[in-house]
Amino acid sequence: MGDDSIHAVSGGKIPVIIDCDPGHDDAIALMLAFGCGRLDVLGVTTVAGNTTGENAYRNARAVLAHIGAEDVPVARGADGPILRSLHTSRDVHGESGLVGITVPPGLREWGMNAVEFLSSTLRKSETRIVLVPTGPLTNIAIAFLAFPDIKEKVGRIVLMGGAAGQGNVTPSSEYNIYADPEAARIVFRSGVPITMIGLDATHKALVYPSEVEEMRKTGAVGALAARLMDFYSLAYRARGFEGTPVHDALAVAAVFDDEVVETRYAHVDVETCGELTAGRTVVDFRSAGGKVPNAKVAVGVDRERFLGHLMGALAALEGANPA
Amino acid sequence: MGDDSIHAVSGGKIPVIIDCDPGHDDAIALMLAFGCGRLDVLGVTTVAGNTTGENAYRNARAVLAHIGAEDVPVARGADGPILRSLHTSRDVHGESGLVGITVPPGLREWGMNAVEFLSSTLRKSETRIVLVPTGPLTNIAIAFLAFPDIKEKVGRIVLMGGAAGQGNVTPSSEYNIYADPEAARIVFRSGVPITMIGLDATHKALVYPSEVEEMRKTGAVGALAARLMDFYSLAYRARGFEGTPVHDALAVAAVFDDEVVETRYAHVDVETCGELTAGRTVVDFRSAGGKVPNAKVAVGVDRERFLGHLMGALAALEGANPA
Amino acid sequence: MGDDSIHAVSGGKIPVIIDCDPGHDDAIALMLAFGCGRLDVLGVTTVAGNTTGENAYRNARAVLAHIGAEDVPVARGADGPILRSLHTSRDVHGESGLVGITVPPGLREWGMNAVEFLSSTLRKSETRIVLVPTGPLTNIAIAFLAFPDIKEKVGRIVLMGGAAGQGNVTPSSEYNIYADPEAARIVFRSGVPITMIGLDATHKALVYPSEVEEMRKTGAVGALAARLMDFYSLAYRARGFEGTPVHDALAVAAVFDDEVVETRYAHVDVETCGELTAGRTVVDFRSAGGKVPNAKVAVGVDRERFLGHLMGALAALEGANPA
Amino acid sequence: MGDDSIHAVSGGKIPVIIDCDPGHDDAIALMLAFGCGRLDVLGVTTVAGNTTGENAYRNARAVLAHIGAEDVPVARGADGPILRSLHTSRDVHGESGLVGITVPPGLREWGMNAVEFLSSTLRKSETRIVLVPTGPLTNIAIAFLAFPDIKEKVGRIVLMGGAAGQGNVTPSSEYNIYADPEAARIVFRSGVPITMIGLDATHKALVYPSEVEEMRKTGAVGALAARLMDFYSLAYRARGFEGTPVHDALAVAAVFDDEVVETRYAHVDVETCGELTAGRTVVDFRSAGGKVPNAKVAVGVDRERFLGHLMGALAALEGANPA
Repeated sequence: MGDDSIHAVSGGKIPVIIDCDPGHDDAIALMLAFGCGRLDVLGVTTVAGNTTGENAYRNARAVLAHIGAEDVPVARGADGPILRSLHTSRDVHGESGLVGITVPPGLREWGMNAVEFLSSTLRKSETRIVLVPTGPLTNIAIAFLAFPDIKEKVGRIVLMGGAAGQGNVTPSSEYNIYADPEAARIVFRSGVPITMIGLDATHKALVYPSEVEEMRKTGAVGALAARLMDFYSLAYRARGFEGTPVHDALAVAAVFDDEVVETRYAHVDVETCGELTAGRTVVDFRSAGGKVPNAKVAVGVDRERFLGHLMGALAALEGANPA
Repeated sequence: MGDDSIHAVSGGKIPVIIDCDPGHDDAIALMLAFGCGRLDVLGVTTVAGNTTGENAYRNARAVLAHIGAEDVPVARGADGPILRSLHTSRDVHGESGLVGITVPPGLREWGMNAVEFLSSTLRKSETRIVLVPTGPLTNIAIAFLAFPDIKEKVGRIVLMGGAAGQGNVTPSSEYNIYADPEAARIVFRSGVPITMIGLDATHKALVYPSEVEEMRKTGAVGALAARLMDFYSLAYRARGFEGTPVHDALAVAAVFDDEVVETRYAHVDVETCGELTAGRTVVDFRSAGGKVPNAKVAVGVDRERFLGHLMGALAALEGANPA
Repeated sequence: MGDDSIHAVSGGKIPVIIDCDPGHDDAIALMLAFGCGRLDVLGVTTVAGNTTGENAYRNARAVLAHIGAEDVPVARGADGPILRSLHTSRDVHGESGLVGITVPPGLREWGMNAVEFLSSTLRKSETRIVLVPTGPLTNIAIAFLAFPDIKEKVGRIVLMGGAAGQGNVTPSSEYNIYADPEAARIVFRSGVPITMIGLDATHKALVYPSEVEEMRKTGAVGALAARLMDFYSLAYRARGFEGTPVHDALAVAAVFDDEVVETRYAHVDVETCGELTAGRTVVDFRSAGGKVPNAKVAVGVDRERFLGHLMGALAALEGANPA
Repeated sequence: MGDDSIHAVSGGKIPVIIDCDPGHDDAIALMLAFGCGRLDVLGVTTVAGNTTGENAYRNARAVLAHIGAEDVPVARGADGPILRSLHTSRDVHGESGLVGITVPPGLREWGMNAVEFLSSTLRKSETRIVLVPTGPLTNIAIAFLAFPDIKEKVGRIVLMGGAAGQGNVTPSSEYNIYADPEAARIVFRSGVPITMIGLDATHKALVYPSEVEEMRKTGAVGALAARLMDFYSLAYRARGFEGTPVHDALAVAAVFDDEVVETRYAHVDVETCGELTAGRTVVDFRSAGGKVPNAKVAVGVDRERFLGHLMGALAALEGANPA
């Protein structure tokens, strides 16, 4: 799992491509990625998941516009899973997929295909790139199928998805994997080193109401983040959560900070055919049956550290973009 | 889940039928059942699982002969799962299914069919009976299919099987459920109150080598139990366990002592079609989707208390049968 | 496939038990069974399928009452499939399951369980009995599971169900097998010789409107048969059939007349897990992979001969019961 | 199904891309495609199936070299199915995948990726192109996933694969679909008009030994075709076929001659999860359930006409390449 070289490249910054379906926690994840000062975001690809492909593409560009990153390329990817019908998370993220943001007029139309962007960016890169998928793994899987050679250019994949314990869409399955289990299986079987940031960790990466109020005070970007958290927290409050898990942002934090999550090596595969278990990440911590671990699975989180990264990024974006 | 009346019947003793596939931990479970003084064991039914149907039937009678219970009826049941091929646990329990015991000559041939025994015993009982399956649920499922009326006579089912966390045969599945997932689904969907004593609890119900030595000193029955533990522990030692989980005995203990396990209500169903997850007990602690809990799932164990029951039973059997 | 002795027993009559879910074609099948003079109908068991378990039990007794066979025992069986929910064929057979019949008052209440009736009748029989299931195979499968010894007393099973070609409920599956694929798999794998009368034959066993008019003229029983055909034909007319397939009656005819269907030996198994193919009878005429044929599969029908049997039976019942 | 315009383009020639896994019948199919004078073969893409990806790429180029078509681009595609392991047909096509051919030295190394070739060729084409897959549908499916816009440039897909009746790898499934059912499902659900040339037709497109002898006399290309038929026929002779079905060539013939097969419109989908039926093409000729037909399914063949095309093509290649 030779992902260590990733930490030292790009002038100290780690080159990443973020593949997302914004989505409220995707939006916060983008803010963290651009505000943390540790990542070189080469581009953003979007995928249908939390919301439609069209919404995800628009929302990603809206977020980038609000944080002064409108020049970073955004490539639109799959409008649905490889084999299944799209089931969005409208109950959590609302009709637009990102209730709480205003979409600035005149968003740039990049006209790029996500698979093409992934393959061309990876192929021409001199260093390996970290992929950070925070939605269904459809784009990554298709890119690997179409252009297997690009896998060698991927340093590792730090993905938000899955659960060793209980799921959230079903008792067995977490949304991102459930939405496109076939894509997830392709990625987990790809041979590329994977860090799986699943519910076992993200359900402990909570942001509490008082912390949302702190965000709100940091300026225009913080206020946007807080507005997004306001809406996003409703669904979790209704389910009995006292804080709100900002799943996708934890995956971004885990790219640049090994200490923010506790991980265990395991063999992970994805159930695609079960009646009750489709989309389950079958995590084998014992690696029974001689299976070699293919993933580091996050099992714990240093919440304070995570929150520190988040607040720091919002403040940094504020400084850079005194909107 | 009106299983409370069960505790008060039969002169303070709880009427039970034990359905088992001995198997070493089944044998210890039988010793506990007969030695605890709290159960009225109306009969034993046997099923293929850990070993063949023929072996299980012979081994159950051998155990009863060793503990002076040879007059308790033993009825032979299914020679294999409802829809699948039989896969025994020869690696754990050995060729005979119960390496370490001597089979006394002249074991009684009862000539009874398990389904018939279950239905006739339940139908003629004036009180409800607790079923204690410690093997695959084949017999219970078939009896419920053939004679649905008998379900009303079952007070509850306290079964060894399943896992909310990691399995043992596969990362997803525990042996008893994996061996006959269709039977398990039928039982979990039967409407009869279920207490599920799965790996989440039994992997903590360990007996350590020093405790096996204590057993060995209590006399002939204790020495037999210790010999069984000697062999049975080998497989667990090879897997890195320091103590040996006596799964099936914990189910018996949970029949007469509510305090020996910590339980949580949950909806439990069984995956029958998954490629990686067949035989998984899908435990929904959140009862999402409006599913009503159908089981109490053991999540913890009071190991000292369990061990106390076990040692007490062995001593009591000794007193009754100074072999 | 030693089913030949079946033809010579019982004073020239073949002893049968009919397992059905009336249903219009089941009703005609019962008329043929009792009117043909070739079968010794030892009893009728009923099962949920075309209609509920309650309706099937009532309808079977109503048919027997109309044809003077009210002394033949009727045992009620399963109220639903082994593992699945019941889906009746209300669109074909109407709310009652047998629109067109009047239910005589005072039907005898037999109070017998189908599995018990099957096992006790088979066990005490000195000759082997032919089972004729014309509904889902739930009862037969459960009886075989509970009492495997009875299989030796079954001469053969002549069942209506399945299709080597196109299905009727789905493109893949015929109703009786689709309704309870697990039961069907158990029966096809039971080792008992099977004659499968599926859609490949029954869709050619058509009764045309002019022939229904002939039935109507033969007297009270014929008039009842014609009324049943009137309703039953509606669903087939709507699907573009010019005649109406009387599926179940063809299975009865095939019990006593080898010439009424053309059969081919094949290995037959049942898909239980497919997304599009659950309930498909996988018929392997080539017996590829070394699979030994376990069934004779009807692939053609001598329609005139079948119709002759049907008309003859109605006339015979008339003579015996000039209602 | 607006595929009619396809017939008139390209100076009377139909522009096609052949996607194949040679394989003996693929080789004959290529000879027909280049020799028929009716097709403008824009390129050949290769895929793992009958043989490995490496073999298929080499064999395709070897065939083109033998027939004087070495300047036609050959792009290498997938080395295995989307989600499954590769199972080649070594028993039919031999270790090399094309026993009987000599591989000329110095085959051109095109260095092209099949998905890239498909997308770039389709995108820049001014007319719609017919795709002719004669192996697993992996390449086509991945290209459609990665670049959905190219589907509009596909006139129709004329594929060899599937069966409405009995399969050949299993009783349910034909090899090309069985090898990659997920790819097949993606293609059948793509919305592109499909002509399915399955076993229902190809098992009647037989070439008899005497006809192979005729081939052998037409010259160098014919002699090569005959040598390929010699080896390829062995497997079919062993299965009891008197003639040898040249499956893939029939798909090519059906591109330029509507009369060579008899077709029926049907809705076709592919089973991906069945235990016995994975890879079955579920062909619904009745289009029950309101499903709109998505394919023309070949159900018969004009064998003489097909053979005429084949012999004509071999002769034409001879004239053009008097090797």
